[in-house]
Amino acid sequence: MTTDISYRPIGVIHSPLTAPGAGPPQGVFAPDIEGTVEVFPEFAQGLTDLSGFSHLYLLYHFHLAGDVELLKKPFLDDSPRGIFAIRYFNRPNPIGLSVVRLTGISGSSDNILEVSEMDILDGTPLLDIKPVVPGFDYRDDVKVGWLEGKISPDR
Amino acid sequence: MTTDISYRPIGVIHSPLTAPGAGPPQGVFAPDIEGTVEVFPEFAQGLTDLSGFSHLYLLYHFHLAGDVELLKKPFLDDSPRGIFAIRYFNRPNPIGLSVVRLTGISGSSDNILEVSEMDILDGTPLLDIKPVVPGFDYRDDVKVGWLEGKISPDR
Repeated sequence: MTTDISYRPIGVIHSPLTAPGAGPPQGVFAPDIEGTVEVFPEFAQGLTDLSGFSHLYLLYHFHLAGDVELLKKPFLDDSPRGIFAIRYFNRPNPIGLSVVRLTGISGSSDNILEVSEMDILDGTPLLDIKPVVPGFDYRDDVKVGWLEGKISPDR
Repeated sequence: MTTDISYRPIGVIHSPLTAPGAGPPQGVFAPDIEGTVEVFPEFAQGLTDLSGFSHLYLLYHFHLAGDVELLKKPFLDDSPRGIFAIRYFNRPNPIGLSVVRLTGISGSSDNILEVSEMDILDGTPLLDIKPVVPGFDYRDDVKVGWLEGKISPDR
């Protein structure tokens, strides 16, 4: 169970965000930032039926992450917090999770996803894509710990 | 960009679900299934501040996944769908994403998370934990493609 697990990127993210720290803390705060998700052609068949979904989870590798920090001051607070209670990238396994809005599909193999609400750095290796399904993922009674009161109350 | 990426499990998931296919398609359909998330003690400091959150994303390795299927008939439909438009585990990179409810923290190093809404198989290697933050993750206008009408309308 402690052996290494190996993944191979299925694509790469293209974004106007090129400098570490250039992005918004979350894509929801950047509805106008657009980008593309290039899925390598050998995986394009897996994109079948994706166009009916408005929002996608992108799972990706924080390729510019530095050394692990188990405690870290997050963007929205002045106190250090446990790395698993924040979204910062210097994690034991630097896997990123973002919600993006799917605005179109293009490319010669229908393998380029056009998206907005982008908060991911240009050149980031893509690991997986999953559809956002509120019926699976959303809960009504969510408590957000140290973030309580730090983001707008209807969120 | 196509070189392998290597991760090491940060813990292991303990669950009453032991047979592949035994679990519910999603934890939201199984509010009474409980389990524990054992985080290896060397990462326990990263759990600081987690107790204030009611729900967590668990990212994990589908360790019993089989060969990749780019098209697959999902649980909730009779037609094959693209693998990136469903949540099935035989993915190019078999990374699972589940929302669980955090009900307690125990263990000599405060490293055992007690959770419900469990849909993960016993023995699954854990890769990452992130807090669920509706203000970051939830959207109001989500279209769910082929799943439209297949799950209850308030979801």
